[in-house]
Parts: sequence; C-alpha cells; structure tokens
Amino acid sequence: MISEKMTSLGQKRSVIREIFEYGRKRKSEIGADNVFDFSLGNPSVPAPPCVEKAMQKLLAENSPVAIHGYTSAQGDLSVRQKISAYINKTHGTKLDENNIYMTCGAAASLCISLRALTASSDDEFITFTPFFPEYRVFVEAAGAKLTSVASNPKNFQIDFDNLAKAINKNTKGVIINSPNNPSGVVLSEKTVLQLCETLAQKQKEYNHEIYLIADEPYRELVYDGISVPYPINYYDNTIICYSFSKSLSLPGERIGYIVVSDKMSDGKTVYAAICGAGRALGYVCAPSMFQKVVAECQGQTSDLSIYVKNRDLLYSALERFGYHCIHPDGAFYLFFETPETDANAFCERAKKYELLLVPGDDFGCPSFVRIAYCVSTEQIEKSLPAFEKLMKEYK
Amino acid sequence: MISEKMTSLGQKRSVIREIFEYGRKRKSEIGADNVFDFSLGNPSVPAPPCVEKAMQKLLAENSPVAIHGYTSAQGDLSVRQKISAYINKTHGTKLDENNIYMTCGAAASLCISLRALTASSDDEFITFTPFFPEYRVFVEAAGAKLTSVASNPKNFQIDFDNLAKAINKNTKGVIINSPNNPSGVVLSEKTVLQLCETLAQKQKEYNHEIYLIADEPYRELVYDGISVPYPINYYDNTIICYSFSKSLSLPGERIGYIVVSDKMSDGKTVYAAICGAGRALGYVCAPSMFQKVVAECQGQTSDLSIYVKNRDLLYSALERFGYHCIHPDGAFYLFFETPETDANAFCERAKKYELLLVPGDDFGCPSFVRIAYCVSTEQIEKSLPAFEKLMKEYK
Repeated sequence: MISEKMTSLGQKRSVIREIFEYGRKRKSEIGADNVFDFSLGNPSVPAPPCVEKAMQKLLAENSPVAIHGYTSAQGDLSVRQKISAYINKTHGTKLDENNIYMTCGAAASLCISLRALTASSDDEFITFTPFFPEYRVFVEAAGAKLTSVASNPKNFQIDFDNLAKAINKNTKGVIINSPNNPSGVVLSEKTVLQLCETLAQKQKEYNHEIYLIADEPYRELVYDGISVPYPINYYDNTIICYSFSKSLSLPGERIGYIVVSDKMSDGKTVYAAICGAGRALGYVCAPSMFQKVVAECQGQTSDLSIYVKNRDLLYSALERFGYHCIHPDGAFYLFFETPETDANAFCERAKKYELLLVPGDDFGCPSFVRIAYCVSTEQIEKSLPAFEKLMKEYK
Repeated sequence: MISEKMTSLGQKRSVIREIFEYGRKRKSEIGADNVFDFSLGNPSVPAPPCVEKAMQKLLAENSPVAIHGYTSAQGDLSVRQKISAYINKTHGTKLDENNIYMTCGAAASLCISLRALTASSDDEFITFTPFFPEYRVFVEAAGAKLTSVASNPKNFQIDFDNLAKAINKNTKGVIINSPNNPSGVVLSEKTVLQLCETLAQKQKEYNHEIYLIADEPYRELVYDGISVPYPINYYDNTIICYSFSKSLSLPGERIGYIVVSDKMSDGKTVYAAICGAGRALGYVCAPSMFQKVVAECQGQTSDLSIYVKNRDLLYSALERFGYHCIHPDGAFYLFFETPETDANAFCERAKKYELLLVPGDDFGCPSFVRIAYCVSTEQIEKSLPAFEKLMKEYK
C-alpha cells in the first residue's frame, strides 16, 4: 500500500489544472483560436527585455561553473543582498541578506514556511475566502489544519466578526493574499491595520506568537495607482512569500523568496526553521541562474498595460451583459457571481460556448467563477459574444 | 512554538554544508588557492557547450511565454517523450512519457518518491553504508524510518546476510546509489541481480510490494569502460531518481526526473501518488527552460576525462603515502580509511594543512573520509604534499 492521500491528490488534480488539461485537448480538436481558455494564471504578456538581457550578460561574463553551480541553501549571498536592498528602498524596511531565503517560487515559499512553523497537528492556519485552493493542500501537507473565514461578500475585505469567531488558542498563523487570486481584490490599509491589531491582541491573549503569512506573487500587478500595504511595516511577526512568476512572467522558472521580518521575535530561529524545512522538502537551492537574473530585474515588470486593457474591456462588457462582478484592482483575475447558484453547472454550460472558467467552489465561494484574463486582448474581444449568449440562457 | 525538528535541521546544517561554509570563510582569509577544499560535490568541469547552445536556440526560436511559462505538473510533454525515447534507446526499455515525471533535481526526486510511497509511520526504507546523509532527512520528512545496512567493508558491495537481517514486513523500499556518493563504488551486475532476487522473494514472503529506489545522479560518471546495470531491466517495482546536476554540471539549476517502471504492478497509481506528492511539497513544475535544455543535451556530458585524471592522480598518490583507499569506479569521490579511528579528529588535523575533507560518520562509516575530487587538477597536484605531511603525523 502506498500513500492514499498522495494518490488521491495526484489523481484528482486541482480543478484549475483539470480545466487547463481539458482546454489543451479541446484546442487540439477545434484549434487554439476557437477555445476561450480563461483557466490558468499563466501570464500572456512576455517577460520584459531585462530578463533575456540579464541572462545574456551572465552567460557572456561568467563561467558556466559560476552560473550553474550550487548556491548556499538560502540563496546566493549577493542576490540576497540586492533583494533586501531593493525592498528597503521601496518599503523603508531595514532588512538584510539574513532575512531573505530564495525559493522555487511562491508554492515553495508557502510550503517551506508552513512546515517551519507547524509544531503540532493541533496547529491551525486561517485564511479568507476566496482563497487559492492549494493553500489547503500545503497546510495539510505541513501537518496542520486550514480554517477558512468568510470575507465580506460585497467587497471581499476581511469580516472581523467572522475572524474573531475563528481565531483560537491553536491559531499558528493567518495567510493573506493581496492582490487576491481569484478576486483581484486588494486589502485596504484600513483592513490590514485592523487585522494586525487583532493579531497583536490575540497574541497577548493566548500568550504565543501568531504569524502573518503574506502570499504576494501579485504585489506589482495593481492598477489605477492603488498601493498595496507592505505587511512588514504593520506587524512584526510577518513572513512574506514572494514569487517573480507574475511580475516578470516567469511562472515556469520557479523563482521567488521568503522574507522573515527583521522585527520578528525570535526571527533567527524562524529563519533557521525555514532553512531546515527547505532541506527536509528537498529544495537544495533555488535555481541558480534565475536567482541572478531576477536580482538584476527588480523593480521591472512585464507590460502591465495589457492586463489593465483586458480588465477594463472584460469588466465593462460583463457588467453590461448583466453579470455581477467584483471590481478587480490587481492581479489578472476577475471574479463574478454566477447567474445560477451551482457554479459547476454554470461552468459546464459555459463550455458549450468554448468558455473555460473555474468554478468558485474550491476558492471557498460556491456561486462565483474565476476568469484569468492574462490572455491576449484579441481572445477577450472574440469571447465577448460567447459571454453574452451564455447570459441570455438565464434571461 | 515553531517546529523544533525543522529548527534543528536548519541550525545544524549538513556536515558537508558546514565544511563548505568554513572553506568559503577560510578562502577569504588566506586566498582561494591556498585552501584545498574537497568538501562539496559541486562539479568543477563546466557544462558542455550543448547547454548554452540549447539555451541560445530556445531564446532565438521561441517566445518568452513559451520558454518560461508553466509546463504540466509532470513536465513538458515533448520533453518527457524525448527523455523516455533516450532511455529506451540506451537501455532497451519500453517507457513512454507517462513513466517520466520531471523534477527539481535528485533531492526533489527522492523526497517526492518517498512521500508518495509512505503510507504509515511504520514504513521503513533500507539503504547501504556508506550513504548520502540527506537520505535520513528525506525519509524522516516523508514520515518513514531509515535503516542502514552495513556493506562489505572490503569493496562496499551489498552484504546480503546483513540485508536479510534488516528486511522485515515493514520494509517499503530499498534505496541504492550507484555510482555511490561517497565511495565512488559501482554495484556490480552480480550484486544487482542478487538484490533483485532477494527483493522479489521478500515481496512474496510478506505479500506486498517492495520498491527499489535507484538514486542515479552519477550514472554517466563511470570510468575504465565499466557499465552500470539499469535497474528497471532487473526488477519491476523500480523507481529511478535521476538528476542532470553532475552529468551536465548543472547542480544549481535543479533539474532531473523520476522514472516509474512501465512494468511496475499498479504503476499508474504510483505515478499518480508521485504527482500528488510533488503537488503537496510545493513543486508546481520543474524549471521550464532547463527542462527543454536538458532534453536537447541527453547523451552528452561534461568533460569526464578531467575526473579520471584527478582520480588517478589522487588515488595513486594516496596509496603511495600509505592511505588505504576504496578504488572508485565512478562519481567524483574517493573514500579512504583514516589512520586514526576518529574521522572527525582526522579531519580537524587535516585542516592544519588546509585540507577540507568530510568525515565518514554521517555516511555511516565512522573511520572513513570523503574527498570530492571534482576540483581543478592543479588543486589536486598542489594538495598532495599536504596529504603526505598529514600521513607522516601517524608514522
């Protein structure tokens, strides 16, 4: 007998991956242009030119041994120095290389952090709906429990009454994700302040640390001049899980980092536990060449204007057709209420029009669906009549 | 309270990493040329030209989105097809893409496989001395137990009497590593045959599967025309954990794969569990660009003649000085008996001569040390008088 849990995780796959694989098949049947695949958060905008430029410079100026050799387990020293310096300059923090741990992307950042923090099977992590469904997989793999707390359904900010009911003596940490996948919502400064006050108070009440884990692969993907509060400036026991997947359109390269706040009580021990967890999970080091590439590309992003254009086009059309959308301020997702309560049935119906959408059930919001609009603007334009026809079925 | 186990893993680091970091510090004090650092298996021979050639071809012919986007969780389809075709051609197997799962290197391959197979905390994995110390970390992180079985101390082939005593109803798998780190020993075909017969018989006796996990990052690094039996051809329940780290000198890039034998009973379920374990450990996909790069470089290796030269130089000199060495047929490690029983004391003494060696204790062989000779031939030549002086202290 092998692990039933792993077998079932492997057989069921995530719903998103399932739809993505269906889309792949369908495209081979009727042509890629005829399938409106909004399933996957795979950036459609190419990596900015700085990425290839940094790669070519590395290849021209360094020996292959220096480029492709092992780095320290926590990441190349000069890379970590550059990253902490950039965060300090941008957010006014006082981090150094010993606060940074390079990872194979955001999923690795989360898995390593959760494994480092989990000391007992009683430990609980809280997150807020809607949330990325893999959080449950990652928290359970670390040996802890995930509790989801319903957000305010109007604006998807945190509902603090609901949070107060969920938090308890076993709460080890709270995971936030802003800008949010799947809603595109950015937590306001007011929300972040109130969250941090709540956590600080609960730490006192229960007389132990409660960690704030900020999953931030979409930090740079915000529009209309909105700013995303940097959690380290609001709460000392903060861990940032960052990835360059979306900002630099490098999702397949698996490169990101963890920041352990310099103001964390016992931060050195937490950093050591992160090193230990990385080791125990088989992450010898983050990919060496891309560590050096991203260090040279900080502050740069893919061309975000395409996402803004896509969002505006899609949002205004869907509202016009009668869909009720949550206005997304960031990321490249749009979340809307389905005109029938069963989002899975709605998504099946959408397939008739070759629209591939992800039902909200796994995100903790059963009557919503997610559109990943990180596709070509042309695909959005071509898909609009399909969305219109789909809505007409409900009128 | 956070995870004590992870904290201690992070604080203690592996002995090898510890010596590596000491070497780094020592080099900054007295100059890199004056430290004879034999601690780390970081290939000194550059990646072969096919690596950069494949990279440049990819960059020239494909969009950044195609190069850097997510692949399927199990790896890019055409990459898996190319890899299975290459293995079939080389070893006469009948694998296809559904037997291959791309990973972030050998450590990831092992962690994912062990997690997939472990169904209960009673499960045991057996390995043979000397063995890579991280096996214990990986097996325990998967929730199982590691049992080490002493090899024949004369030639480090498997001692089957010792194996018979260790194997029991809880044995879930056996890990072999040939060519071996730290000894460079290659398991003979006779040994492999006898091992597979033993396992087949024990499967019957206990009426459950026993998996053979072959950790093979050094497969191509063999000298003097010696051949390494391909375990899939000897035993149906075989999982191969492969990495391109050593063959293509890409250790920092974290790229490898798992092969689940096509002849494995219930192989599809095991493959699904591997997909599930990869997901649970946060491995979204293997680095996308290097998946495509290694698929174009199969059958090629770094210039192995340098390792042969280093081995011959070192082996003959050490034997001349009076050290008793195990003759290494592969990998880039040389294992020798220390002239005092305490290998740690010996390694401390060696530091006086700026020789950085790894004591055999963590490999399960307390009176041996490992030399990683993947360094420049010049470093070997320069270090020989230090080895000679060191031995004189014992005469």
